[in-house]
Amino acid sequence: MGSRWKNSGNCCASGMLSLCVLVSLSICLSRAEDSAMENIVTEKKAEESHRQDSADLLIFIMLLTLTILTIWLFKHRRFRFLHETGLAMIYGLLVGVVLRYGIHVPRDMNNITLSCHVNASPATLLVNVSGKFYEYTLKGEISGKEIDDVQDNEMLRKVTFDPEVFFNILLPPIIFHAGYSLKRRHFFRNMGSILAYAFLGTVISCFIIGLLMYGCVTLMKQIGQLGGDFFFTDCLFFGAIVSATDPVTVLAIFNELQVDVDLYALLFGESVLNDAVAVVLSSSIVAYQPQGDNTHTFEAMAMVKSFGVFLGVFSGSFALGMATGVMTALVTKFTKLRDFSLLETALFFLMSWSTFLLAEACGFTGVVAVLFCGITQAHYTYNNLSPESQDRTKQLFELLNFLAENFIFSYMGLTLFTFQNHVFNPIFIIGAFLATFLGRAANIYPLSFLLNLGRRNKISSNFQHMMMFAGLRGAMTFALSIRDTATYARRMMFSTTLLVVFFTVWVCGGGTTQMLSCQRIRVGVDPDQEHSIGPDGIERRSTKHESAWLFRIWYNFDHNYMKPFLTHSGPPLTATMPACCGALARCLTSPQAYENEEQLRDDDSDLILNDGDISLTYGDITVSTDASGAHTSSRPSVVAANSDELDRELALGEHELVIRGTRLVLPMDDSEPPLPGDVLHRRSGALS
Amino acid sequence: MGSRWKNSGNCCASGMLSLCVLVSLSICLSRAEDSAMENIVTEKKAEESHRQDSADLLIFIMLLTLTILTIWLFKHRRFRFLHETGLAMIYGLLVGVVLRYGIHVPRDMNNITLSCHVNASPATLLVNVSGKFYEYTLKGEISGKEIDDVQDNEMLRKVTFDPEVFFNILLPPIIFHAGYSLKRRHFFRNMGSILAYAFLGTVISCFIIGLLMYGCVTLMKQIGQLGGDFFFTDCLFFGAIVSATDPVTVLAIFNELQVDVDLYALLFGESVLNDAVAVVLSSSIVAYQPQGDNTHTFEAMAMVKSFGVFLGVFSGSFALGMATGVMTALVTKFTKLRDFSLLETALFFLMSWSTFLLAEACGFTGVVAVLFCGITQAHYTYNNLSPESQDRTKQLFELLNFLAENFIFSYMGLTLFTFQNHVFNPIFIIGAFLATFLGRAANIYPLSFLLNLGRRNKISSNFQHMMMFAGLRGAMTFALSIRDTATYARRMMFSTTLLVVFFTVWVCGGGTTQMLSCQRIRVGVDPDQEHSIGPDGIERRSTKHESAWLFRIWYNFDHNYMKPFLTHSGPPLTATMPACCGALARCLTSPQAYENEEQLRDDDSDLILNDGDISLTYGDITVSTDASGAHTSSRPSVVAANSDELDRELALGEHELVIRGTRLVLPMDDSEPPLPGDVLHRRSGALS
Repeated sequence: MGSRWKNSGNCCASGMLSLCVLVSLSICLSRAEDSAMENIVTEKKAEESHRQDSADLLIFIMLLTLTILTIWLFKHRRFRFLHETGLAMIYGLLVGVVLRYGIHVPRDMNNITLSCHVNASPATLLVNVSGKFYEYTLKGEISGKEIDDVQDNEMLRKVTFDPEVFFNILLPPIIFHAGYSLKRRHFFRNMGSILAYAFLGTVISCFIIGLLMYGCVTLMKQIGQLGGDFFFTDCLFFGAIVSATDPVTVLAIFNELQVDVDLYALLFGESVLNDAVAVVLSSSIVAYQPQGDNTHTFEAMAMVKSFGVFLGVFSGSFALGMATGVMTALVTKFTKLRDFSLLETALFFLMSWSTFLLAEACGFTGVVAVLFCGITQAHYTYNNLSPESQDRTKQLFELLNFLAENFIFSYMGLTLFTFQNHVFNPIFIIGAFLATFLGRAANIYPLSFLLNLGRRNKISSNFQHMMMFAGLRGAMTFALSIRDTATYARRMMFSTTLLVVFFTVWVCGGGTTQMLSCQRIRVGVDPDQEHSIGPDGIERRSTKHESAWLFRIWYNFDHNYMKPFLTHSGPPLTATMPACCGALARCLTSPQAYENEEQLRDDDSDLILNDGDISLTYGDITVSTDASGAHTSSRPSVVAANSDELDRELALGEHELVIRGTRLVLPMDDSEPPLPGDVLHRRSGALS
Repeated sequence: MGSRWKNSGNCCASGMLSLCVLVSLSICLSRAEDSAMENIVTEKKAEESHRQDSADLLIFIMLLTLTILTIWLFKHRRFRFLHETGLAMIYGLLVGVVLRYGIHVPRDMNNITLSCHVNASPATLLVNVSGKFYEYTLKGEISGKEIDDVQDNEMLRKVTFDPEVFFNILLPPIIFHAGYSLKRRHFFRNMGSILAYAFLGTVISCFIIGLLMYGCVTLMKQIGQLGGDFFFTDCLFFGAIVSATDPVTVLAIFNELQVDVDLYALLFGESVLNDAVAVVLSSSIVAYQPQGDNTHTFEAMAMVKSFGVFLGVFSGSFALGMATGVMTALVTKFTKLRDFSLLETALFFLMSWSTFLLAEACGFTGVVAVLFCGITQAHYTYNNLSPESQDRTKQLFELLNFLAENFIFSYMGLTLFTFQNHVFNPIFIIGAFLATFLGRAANIYPLSFLLNLGRRNKISSNFQHMMMFAGLRGAMTFALSIRDTATYARRMMFSTTLLVVFFTVWVCGGGTTQMLSCQRIRVGVDPDQEHSIGPDGIERRSTKHESAWLFRIWYNFDHNYMKPFLTHSGPPLTATMPACCGALARCLTSPQAYENEEQLRDDDSDLILNDGDISLTYGDITVSTDASGAHTSSRPSVVAANSDELDRELALGEHELVIRGTRLVLPMDDSEPPLPGDVLHRRSGALS
């Protein structure tokens, strides 16, 4: 077989990687082949693969359907030992086994493997098939030993998704929903502690785990157990991805049993934020690229650089998320979009989604941006929405979250068997479990001790044990670990991470109720009860002083400026802003703000039901200003008022909350203040 | 530069296309290049393209957001000349212009075009980059003259989606929503006529247009205007895709002005069904593959075969759609899933989606299956859902429909400028417009004449003119035409179709109100009024006798067997089924069925509000059976009862309907029977 090739220099401009070769080989097949025939074949192939894809996706849909039906049975029977996510994993495992061992796919003949050996991997590839040009796109690198499998395990490889799917499609709704349903009041009450756990804690556990794993890896190297490179940065990376907790199971049970709200707030707040921290942390560890020939030595400069990356990416994503949230709030405030709830919902959805895309386009982390966008939307935009849109948005994201979460977990189960390049190493696995445990401990206990120095209502030891125990790993950890499985180290991490997730979700998740009882943590706490204890006010003072400085600064700013600016509620800006910018204040304050102020005196109740819903409503503000007057003299009184009104205000935020885990609550929440049938009715619907 | 290559026959098994070559060239770049460096470069490239994708998607999100805000303004100002879809197209056009002429993208250097000239286009391609194997997947064929553009117009090519996206992601929710919100009562009243228009009419217009276009094409060939092949099958294909009407604009206005309900039903029903017909028709035309060397001669055998394909695919998709719908109904009926509306909604969503995937996997048409699934879900499952889920599902699919529809239309506008291979041919375009017009005429007028022979309430001439005028082309036509733009003929079709859509949506859509007034079609008709006219009953009898045979068969079967079997409503199966299978009947009939029967006597009203919602509720049935008794003697009375109860029953189906266009209705529908505040409140929300 003769081969000729010429270099057609039609696009060989400068640019280090720009090369353009035209190789023409005439092999195997006769030149005389009918091109029409070829077309048909190509079409058939495309159709075939489309069918295959549909079938694969169908598998997952069926899995989810099965999961839903089983969950229903469990709830029906009040069976609490297995959460839906755990169930989804089990079903995933079963299907994985079937796919791996049950079905034998004959070697796929239509799949030609042509391999041109050149020195660059273009993003686009043109293949000239006897005159016709076909375009190919880079799918990714595959390991050398995989090549033979490419055809054998065509089917297995089909059911394994592109890892980016998790970050670009499945994770965003989950994270957004988490932010959109942060249990605000108790979250802000414990803001200081939550931030400490989420930021300090995650970093601590990341480095602890990293160091321990490095020890473990060096040990393995000694006894020749290591089959490839495993650098310190890899260990740190592992530490970062394993530090993202996701106690959805535990929270669901907490919610169901109405466990102490502060404990709930601490766990939920931490888990929401440390996801964000872990993502940015891992990406900045990857960004650690020392110069020089040996790229894995320690280098201060690179260290500083990746710390800069961390700060930059995090703050950038945070800012973007806030920005889009604020924009949505302004649009919904200043247009009468609320007359058309469909348009409103659509806008809300699109704006929230654009946050993600914007962040990704700017090179920030979309998931983090979406989280803060969700919080902003809940805190400001939500108040401007019409009641229908409030329901719609809540229900929509609840549904998306539910589907995405269960999809990820069932995929986790499936991938344990369908993933081609698992590297299970007993020593590494044992080390990982140990390190995860110690890392969690090093996060919770020391920080709790330090925090208790500052807190009035201490984080009791049994709470600490519970938090320790509730360090489940979930969707985020999985998504981070599957994102890159190119190297040996990454594969070993991935395999190990899977086991960690399985163990924590099944064992820790399943044992929650037992743990609660053996730690004697009181259940059946009415969130509002503790505030109606009476004027003895120990609780009060304690909450008031917890993380006072941080909280008060934020609260005053939010209450006096952000709320009135972004929503129809709060004191008129005319009252809170300095006299100089009275004109601006007047045009920014919505007429309702004045009316509301009047209303506040005679009736709070309906406000609570209307938009006290998720927001911190503005309780009974002692400041009194007439619409026109912009006398700043009243501001101190606003500030002063806080200390007392605070809890009452925050208390209003409690009604009709959809919280991350609530879909698991059985309709047995009779311990709540009586609401008009309709709302209560719809609420219990949203909760169940 | 030296080139060596060896043929490693490691996988050259049998199988006509299975070849495996290993070519190794060492060009341009030095062998000594650092592989780590390479990795980084590859990563960077991937990241870059991801950013690009995000940015592109962001463009569309922004477009939609802009559209929403403008629509709001229009509605706010009661401005009816431009529908949101038309608006979306305009914005799309603008952005398209900017992308095409405004932004000049520098030649992308990172994009290597390596073209291996071999005799087959594999689905998967392995490229061996100095030891590393990268996997490539077939994206599709691109025309020879495009190749130089590949790099120039990287950006333009990026914003053009894979056409399959429309069929697999955007179209299904639209079609499902159409089916889920078919205005049942008037639809079934005019079922005969609708089916005639949808099936006969579409086929007629397809062939008329096909023939006319063939004439046009031959003319062009004569005067040497034709730049490539254009066979008769292509003409027929064009006829098929252009025959799918989508008068969403018109329907929205009808709805707003409350135009005569029968006219509405005729138009909506036709448009929903002829989408399905057009899809299957076009696919069966493509399937027309005569044997022999000349593949474009007429051949009876192939003709029959493709007719078989039509019947097979259509009935198969229909059956699948029905099947999944029925399954969902059964699951929701026999489980207590309604206690957890989130689970219920998720299940509903997943089952409906699985219809599509199942159909695609089986080689049927997913879109058609989804349509009939939607109808079934609305007709049966909807009654079993809890009120929350009823709202949720309605709102969810309303939102999806809204987003998908506007996305498609804005993409249409965009693609007019960003699509690379437009073929605008004045003669063809003029011919197409003419043919489209005549085809529509040949559909409406003759059929109306024939139908009027059988109808009591004739389709008046002004109705016919209105239907003629309302033959807008929309999403389906576009999706079908963009699906395959490989050949010259297909490209010309695509470009022409775009113009047809633009014209019809803007001109016909915009002129609807004028047309209505000049045709003197009465507006502001209360759907229920005509039935409360009194016992003179001309209307009654007419509706009763319209397509009597078809309707009555269907209705009796549905009312006596399907409803009781699939829902909690209807007469107990024990009453309707023959005595022999009494046991089966007893276990299939839900306890409610008996209770309902009791209730019927004392109060209808609340039933109307509970699940009379979309379903045909079971009016006041004259038959009376005790739970145990399975005496079939009562069946005749059931049948007999229909003739009178029919309209009243159908009338119940009217309340709180979400219909395809309703999102456009301004909250000004006071002409409806008073409902409890909550429902009315939420309804107007759903409508606006």
